[in-house]
Formats: sequence, C-alpha cells, structure tokens
Amino acid sequence: MAFPMQFMSDNAAAVHPQVWRAMQAADTADTPYDTDALSRRLDEAFSELFGCEVAALWVASGTAANCLALATMVQPHGAVLCHREAHIEMDEAGAPGFYLHGAKLVLVDGAGAKIAPDAAKAALAAIRDDVHQVQVHALSVTQASEYGCCYRPDELAALMAIKSERGLKAHMDGARFANAVAFLGGAPAEACEGVDALSFGCVKNGGMNAEAIVFFDPALADLARYRRKRAGHLQSKGRYLAAQVLAMLDGDLWLANARAANAAAAERSALRAQGFGFYDWGPDAARFVAAWDTREEHARALARAIAGL
Amino acid sequence: MAFPMQFMSDNAAAVHPQVWRAMQAADTADTPYDTDALSRRLDEAFSELFGCEVAALWVASGTAANCLALATMVQPHGAVLCHREAHIEMDEAGAPGFYLHGAKLVLVDGAGAKIAPDAAKAALAAIRDDVHQVQVHALSVTQASEYGCCYRPDELAALMAIKSERGLKAHMDGARFANAVAFLGGAPAEACEGVDALSFGCVKNGGMNAEAIVFFDPALADLARYRRKRAGHLQSKGRYLAAQVLAMLDGDLWLANARAANAAAAERSALRAQGFGFYDWGPDAARFVAAWDTREEHARALARAIAGL
Amino acid sequence: MAFPMQFMSDNAAAVHPQVWRAMQAADTADTPYDTDALSRRLDEAFSELFGCEVAALWVASGTAANCLALATMVQPHGAVLCHREAHIEMDEAGAPGFYLHGAKLVLVDGAGAKIAPDAAKAALAAIRDDVHQVQVHALSVTQASEYGCCYRPDELAALMAIKSERGLKAHMDGARFANAVAFLGGAPAEACEGVDALSFGCVKNGGMNAEAIVFFDPALADLARYRRKRAGHLQSKGRYLAAQVLAMLDGDLWLANARAANAAAAERSALRAQGFGFYDWGPDAARFVAAWDTREEHARALARAIAGL
Amino acid sequence: MAFPMQFMSDNAAAVHPQVWRAMQAADTADTPYDTDALSRRLDEAFSELFGCEVAALWVASGTAANCLALATMVQPHGAVLCHREAHIEMDEAGAPGFYLHGAKLVLVDGAGAKIAPDAAKAALAAIRDDVHQVQVHALSVTQASEYGCCYRPDELAALMAIKSERGLKAHMDGARFANAVAFLGGAPAEACEGVDALSFGCVKNGGMNAEAIVFFDPALADLARYRRKRAGHLQSKGRYLAAQVLAMLDGDLWLANARAANAAAAERSALRAQGFGFYDWGPDAARFVAAWDTREEHARALARAIAGL
Repeated sequence: MAFPMQFMSDNAAAVHPQVWRAMQAADTADTPYDTDALSRRLDEAFSELFGCEVAALWVASGTAANCLALATMVQPHGAVLCHREAHIEMDEAGAPGFYLHGAKLVLVDGAGAKIAPDAAKAALAAIRDDVHQVQVHALSVTQASEYGCCYRPDELAALMAIKSERGLKAHMDGARFANAVAFLGGAPAEACEGVDALSFGCVKNGGMNAEAIVFFDPALADLARYRRKRAGHLQSKGRYLAAQVLAMLDGDLWLANARAANAAAAERSALRAQGFGFYDWGPDAARFVAAWDTREEHARALARAIAGL
Repeated sequence: MAFPMQFMSDNAAAVHPQVWRAMQAADTADTPYDTDALSRRLDEAFSELFGCEVAALWVASGTAANCLALATMVQPHGAVLCHREAHIEMDEAGAPGFYLHGAKLVLVDGAGAKIAPDAAKAALAAIRDDVHQVQVHALSVTQASEYGCCYRPDELAALMAIKSERGLKAHMDGARFANAVAFLGGAPAEACEGVDALSFGCVKNGGMNAEAIVFFDPALADLARYRRKRAGHLQSKGRYLAAQVLAMLDGDLWLANARAANAAAAERSALRAQGFGFYDWGPDAARFVAAWDTREEHARALARAIAGL
Repeated sequence: MAFPMQFMSDNAAAVHPQVWRAMQAADTADTPYDTDALSRRLDEAFSELFGCEVAALWVASGTAANCLALATMVQPHGAVLCHREAHIEMDEAGAPGFYLHGAKLVLVDGAGAKIAPDAAKAALAAIRDDVHQVQVHALSVTQASEYGCCYRPDELAALMAIKSERGLKAHMDGARFANAVAFLGGAPAEACEGVDALSFGCVKNGGMNAEAIVFFDPALADLARYRRKRAGHLQSKGRYLAAQVLAMLDGDLWLANARAANAAAAERSALRAQGFGFYDWGPDAARFVAAWDTREEHARALARAIAGL
Repeated sequence: MAFPMQFMSDNAAAVHPQVWRAMQAADTADTPYDTDALSRRLDEAFSELFGCEVAALWVASGTAANCLALATMVQPHGAVLCHREAHIEMDEAGAPGFYLHGAKLVLVDGAGAKIAPDAAKAALAAIRDDVHQVQVHALSVTQASEYGCCYRPDELAALMAIKSERGLKAHMDGARFANAVAFLGGAPAEACEGVDALSFGCVKNGGMNAEAIVFFDPALADLARYRRKRAGHLQSKGRYLAAQVLAMLDGDLWLANARAANAAAAERSALRAQGFGFYDWGPDAARFVAAWDTREEHARALARAIAGL
C-alpha cells in the first residue's frame, strides 16, 4: 500500500513533542530509581488530578501496571474477576499468572467488552465458598474497554456495589483511560470512582514508555514498590519515566491528545473496513484505536480510498 | 557539599548525546513491540560484534536482563551458583526467586566479588545428588564484578570448565561489561567466552533505559521472548530501546564511554574515601563506579578537596 | 436420615481389607522415602499392567498426581487445554496455577464433560501464534470424566491426533480410571492410549491415601521426582503408599472394586434424585459416584425409600 | 551387616501399635477431607495440650507442614531467617521457594544448628531497609535442631524478643518437638513460647504419614486451609491422618515415645561412630536420631559391636 499513514495501533505512534521536551529537561544528573525530584512529584500531581490523596508509581508498560496493581490485591490462591476479552486475559501472555503467582482469572461476559453486573454476580454466586474452589479477591474493569466502550458512572457504580458487598478490591485497566474521560466528559475521578488502583495509560496517548499506577489506597503503593523492583521494573534512571508522565498531566495534554484521537476515531469508525491495518476486535472494535497523532486528513484520505474500492 | 558533581552512581548519569539522537531518529511510526526495523537489526549487530551468530533482545533494566536470561537456563526446582555479593543476590529484591519461580541461589566466595573456581567446585561437590537437595542448573558470573574486578580469559575458562564438566549453563551479568572489555583489552568475545547468555549493559554507560540480552544459543532467545512479554517487559514502542542499544554499538561508542569512565575511576580510586557520595562496597569497591560523564576535572577536584581534609 | 449408608462420595469410603493387609505387611523397617523394596517395585508392576516400560510414582492425592504430572509437560508461560468442568479447573483450588507456576488452563466444552475434538481444535486455532497469547503445551483428559462418561478408544484417538499434530503432551486424570476400564472392557492400555502420563486413582477405589502417577515417558518421571519432593509429597515412610498401590494391582483388585462400584452406580443411577447425599453434577452426573463398598442392597434400599416418597 | 536393627533414620521406623489401632478405628465411612469427626477434634486436642486456643491442621509430611506454615507469614517478596543447616534450607528440595513463591531464606549461624541471637541481629541489621533488598518477614527455628540440640526457654525468649522488635512472625519446625519437650522437661507450651505456628511432628515419633500444623493465631490457619488444598495436601480420607495425630496425643503417647527414643539415643550417642547407618551431621549430630522403636538392647548390641572393632 502507498499510504504513509499508520492506523494499525496507537501502540506504534510517535512520541508527543511535549513529552520529548520534558524528557530532555530531565537530562541532568539526579539520584537514581525513584528518588529523583520528578518521581517524587508524582503523588502530588495525581492527588491534584483526582482530588484526593493518592500514591503513584511509574512503570514501563501497561502489562506491568496492571499486574503490579493486581498483585497488591490478590493472593496467590485467589482470583481476579474480569471480562472474557480483557487485555489481562487475552494479550498479556499470562502475565497475571506470573505476577499473582498462579492466581486465576474468572472470566465473565458483557456487551462491548464491559463486564455485565449480572454476569459478575452469577459468576461469584457459582463459586462455592470452600477451599476446593478459587475465591475471587478483586475485580478488574477496563476503561475504555478493549472494544472502545466506556463505563458510565452508574454502570461503574453497579460493579463497585458488587465489590463492596463481597469485600473485594477493584483495579481499573486504564490503558485508554484518557479516551474514556474525554468521551465521558466528567471529572477524572468519576470515571474511576470506587477502584483501589488505576493503570493510567500514557504510551498509547503520546508517551514513549511510561505508564502510571495510581493507588487510591496508599498502603497498596508501598507493597507495589517492592514488587516493582522485584519484577525488574524499577529503572535506575526513573526520572525519564516520571518526566513523561508529568508532561502528560501538564496543561492536561493527556486530555487534549485523547480528544484528538477520539475525533479521528469517530471519523474512521464509519469505515468498518477490515484489512487496512486495523486490528479486528469485533463489533465497534476499532472505535478508539487511533492514536493522538492520527491526523484527521489521513483518516479522511483512507475513507476516500476505501469508498473508491 | 557544594560540589555539583555526581559520584554516587553511574545509574544516575545523563544520557549520551548520540543515544538521544538515535532515539529521536526513531521517532517515526513503525510497527509495535519488537517487530520494527531497529529491533530487527539487533541480532545482526551483536552477531557482528561477537563474531558468531547470536540473538539479542532489548529490555529496560539490568535486573530484567539477568533474570530473563537465567529463566531460560534454570528450572524452578534448580539453582544458580553465583558469588555471595552478586547483584542478583544483593540488590535485585529477590527478582531471581520471582523470575525463576522459586529456584535458589547457591552462594560462593572469591576475592574481588569474583567466583573462585575452588569455591565453586566445593559448593557443587557439597550438594548431594538426590531429590532432597536443590541441584545447580547454571552459573552466573559478573563481568566486571560488583567490586569492579574483571575475569581474565584464563580465569573465565576455569569456570567454564566447571560448567562443561557439570553440564550446566552459564550467564554473565555484564551491567559493566563495557568497562571490563575496555580494561581487559581483548575482543568482546574473549571477555564472555563460554557463556550462554550475556546481560549487555547500556544504562550505566550512557544509555537511558535499554539493556540487551545476548543469547549465544538462539534457542534460548525464543524462550526469552515469551518470558519477556509475560514479565511486562515487551514495550510497545520498542524501537526507542533498540535505538539506544544500536547507538551504543555504533562506532563503538560503548567502548569509548567505558574507557572514559575507567579513566575517571582510576583517578578516583586513589581516594579510597568513604562518605562522599560513593557506595561503600568493601575493598576496591569503588573502582569502576564512575559513569561515562564523570569528567576527569571533577574527579580531580574531589581528590583535592579530600586531600585538603 | 436413618440410613447408615454413605452415598455422598467415593472419597469418603472405607479402606479395602486387602489394602489394609498390604499396609500392615509393610510395617517393618525399611529405607525411607521411595528407596524401599515396595516403592521400587512400582515401575515393574505398572509396566506389566500396561504392557510397556513405564515409570510410576506414588503420591497422596489426586490433585498432587494431576499437577505433578502436568508440571513435567507445561512450562510456566504455557497452558493446559482441558474441559471446562475438569477437576483441575473446578475443584483443585487453583493447584495447577501453583504447580505450573502460573500456567493457564484453556477451557473447552463437550458433552458429558468430555472434550469435544472440534472444540479443542477451535480453541487451539483461536490462539495467535505470538508471544502475546499463552500457547498450549499439553492436553488433560479425564477418564472417566467428571460426569462419569468414558472416552472410547476412537474418541481418545481423535484427541491424541490433535496432540500429535500440535506437538503437545497429554495427561490423563484417571481418578476413576478403574471405573473407565471396567466399563470399556478393553485392556488398560487402550483406555489411555497416547497419553504421556496417567494419574492412576486408588483412593476412590478402596485405597486410603495413595495414588500413582504412571509416566509412559520415563524421562518425565525423573523430573517429577524432584517436583514431588519440592511439593512436600515425598513421604518418608513411602512404603505404606507403595503397599496400597501394589495391593490394588495385585490380582486386579482395582478392576474388581471398580466393577462393584459400577454395578452399584448403575442401579442407583435410576434414582436421579437429588438431596440424598449425592453430589449433583448435572446430566448423568451421579453415574459413577459410588464407591467400591456401596453394597447393592443399600442402593436398593435407598431406591425403595425414594420410591416411597 | 548382620544386624536386624535399623539405626539409619527415625524416618524409616515402623508405625506404633496405638497409631495402627486408631487408624483402624477410623475405618468407617465419614464425610471427606477435614469435615469428619476426627479432624474436627484436632483444634480442641491441641488447645488442651498447649493451654490456649489454637487451630490445628493435619498434613502428610514435615516439609508440607513447614512450608504451609511459613506461607501464612511470608509474602513472596519477603524472606525467612533460619539457621544455615535448617531442614528447610538443606533437605526440602527448595520447597520453601515453591510454597513461598520465590521468597528467600536468609541463613545465619549458631552452635548446634541453633540460631545465635547475635547472628540473627547482625543478619537483620545488614539488610538495608529499601526495596532493593529482600526484607525478612519471619523467623524459623527448629526445636530440637538438626543436630539434636534444644532451645532452652531463655534462649527461645531471646529470639522471640528479636521477632517482636522487628515486627516479624515466627515458625517452629518441630519435626522432633516431642524429643525436645521430653528433654527439656517443661510444659509443651514453654518449648514453643512465642511462635505463631508449630510443625508438630508425628512421623519420626511412631506415626505413619501425618504431621500437624498448630497455629497459635487461628487467623493464619484459615489461610493455611486454602494453601493446603492448593498444594494437593487436603487428603479426601483425612480421618486416617487425624486418627494418627490424635493417637499420638492420647495418653501422651508422643512423650512416651520421645522419651524412649531419647534414652536410646543417649546410649548411642556415646558411640560417636560414623558409618553404621547413621547420618553424619557433624558434632553431636546423631543425638536424637533414634526412633521410638529403637530398643535399648539393640543400641547396646551395636555399642558392643563397635567397641569390639
């Protein structure tokens, strides 16, 4: 194909200029790991964003973010309840089994790759409360979901009610949290109300190789710090990761990028075509799979090309 | 103290300008993970460097490099024989236990944090060959060692003879492999002759957050690819890591940086002082703990300051 | 209820008198673990039973047998394909996740809790051959299944063809292998043709606390010996377990007990009643859930009682 | 040799007649796993023995008892401090690494294979309180030690003071707890004062294949129940294990057997000979390695034979 455009995945997009600048500004010597000035600023930056006291850690990938968060909530003999098409089940190479030391994923259904509350309840009810069956310790919800669908506040509340009733913890895979907040339009805190930890994605949204884990319960963050190092994810020059995350938050770049990507995706989603470098995820699958740098003119060019076929 | 200099750790040094340039040159869209053009060039680049066919993977940290390499060699019920002060034992937060699923480290002594062949033999001989004791599956040697000491070719050969005799595998922690090669003066292949996988360090030598694992047995690399993803270390924009590694190899920047660091360290090692931001590792400990950007005048300034005390 | 009979589970039955006698005959000092004369006889006894050279180990439970067998076939980053209602998925408390260090179970459907070959093929075909998805390393089939259904030789062959085509290993959960062989009527080897390891159940068939793992590939047995000890399953007075297993084989007691249990179950299966101490497993569920000591008159008494309701 | 006597190990001894009788008395149908009447009596029996409320579980081996107890106290990223010659380090095939998911053993010295308090303090002080080093979560002490030496109450108190000061948990490997209590002469509770869980050995003391884990903190027992099943150690006919344990407690058989073994061992310990079927453990090693059924006349016969050499 002659298109210079890249629609395959927001994973492969370039790094946003503001992120580059922040990384270069970090290029002076500082103390290693997460003791530098930038890394130490993360807690405050996210506390401000969410309007409550949180603790935040950088990591290099979404898989690491998801699994380190879950490792603070689920014991090896427990389970995570998630959607059958969640990234942790489908595309993380068994990383949850590794990080959680053999804990299980209990898979449930729901339209648009969102967990249906009734399906969650049924799955929990089907587990006998004895030592022969694996007990669920946490829920993991994906905002926006693998199909680009978002949980509205009331939908999320229904799942968090199950969480409370059952005495569980909750994790949110927010690899595309920015797109969800941009789409939903409310405060960031509304889009993750009730979860104990959020994987806050940057890489698909203009970052290079930094994601954040935001712990709404700071005690869990202390545990995650040990596990992060143990997983080889405590980089020695951590300030370059902190710089990326802070750049995304600075002036709400994360939301601006997500709005641009959502707009391009909306344009593109009319195409419904397969085979042009899209991942095919099923109904509505491609919805948010556009990166911050997918220019509208490119999306339109592709639309014209396809229309001409 | 009023010094603007940073002697604490090569971990915290800035990123070399050539590495930056290579990263920026990679800032165009390409396919994700390790399918991009740069990542695909690693095998060839390292094959050329070592004069034999190898397979190479990027990862973000030395701990991940060490543990992913070892995970291809050691079964969960086995053990790694290493020096009592090896990084994998002392400073990786139990990462080998995590990555090797509970395999053990068998610790031996030796001057300068180098494994003494007799100590290795004695440790192996002390293990009964039955199912009640954990059997050693691999050796791990550190080049240069935690104390900045290097294995000369004959010293390494003595350990590799034990490896062969016992039917083991061998890993080399080369977080400071560049410093070792620069010090030893021979071909890179001589400094790691006989090992099955080498953690080839870049971060302490001017890189940002990319190390390489070089597999002299490509079959092990295939296994490591699964484990890397499973550990959350397969970054989606992997080309920025590949770019760092390739920049280090390009024009032998890795050796030039290591020579500069060794020279600064040699100057500094006369100081033998404690408490000036050095990590105190014991006799000869500080020897190579200088980064590529530790300028000689800074080292001399510190020397004068200390001399004046 | 006034019934002295026990229909709840073959798990809870008494120990067969011949098993008791064999255990008592073992009550003289011998060497510990599995070095005693009885334990050393297992390989030969099972080789004779199956008409080929096998290696056999005793363990104390079916869960341990299943998981130790699978641990020789599946790497931590791999998966086991099994039926959605297999015991390893439903009733072993996540033991496969523990023993296989986080490996996954890929669940498929099929009538009577038997894997449908098409379902197995579809599940395997749906897994992308890349590092992002967990690859299947082994099949696990249950003979007789959780619903008391048996794989006929041609049905088993269809699954073993998939195994060969995909280069997998195969395990058979034979907690009720005796009932299957008694029902199928052929040679024991036919009922497990093509599998690499068989969990040969004794406990539900008149034993006290010994099962056997039969390895058709003796190299796997060597690996299992390390894992058995590491799991705390190498009992020091192993001869009492070996005695149980040998007693079951002696004079084909295992088949005689299974035939008695099958006959009682056939009688009982007309009842289809729930609430009389049966586990309710679904269609045909109770079929083989009768123990070797469920006397026919007891089954009839229950039938009369229920008929009178 | 012409001796019919067995001095090699208390592991290989016969089963005590009272234990046999109790097992046979259990040979009626009851509910499976640990829901039977005998298993449900364990908590009370041990609560009476120790004079406080405890929860007790049966398991089949000392390795399983030790590791299941430790798994309730130590997180995967933590460590157990124990003696360099502790059974969990030397002779359990890496089982702690398996059960604790890669947690580490921190090894310390001390005469007679007993932890020296100063060595424990020094080891703890040498661990930096940061995420790069593995933090100790629990102590494990062995009573009587691998060399047959006992902790006197004041010696144990010194270690428990370290435990409290550091906020650790404590486990006692009591494979030969009976011999220790018989030797020390005080109440059972004194010999394990301050520990959170005790592996209470029966197998070396006349049992067949049942040990008990006694939890002085019943909350830990609830956790252990899940882990026991997950490890394949929840036997379905658990009543035969409970029967063994209860038989040992009944009329203080455990102490009577231990006294007999200690007396035989005292006689034998004059021999100091190697090569007569003793395990050679170093100074004083053979001290308690005599089983309940090592008759004094046999020990004397051996003594005469050796004296005649």
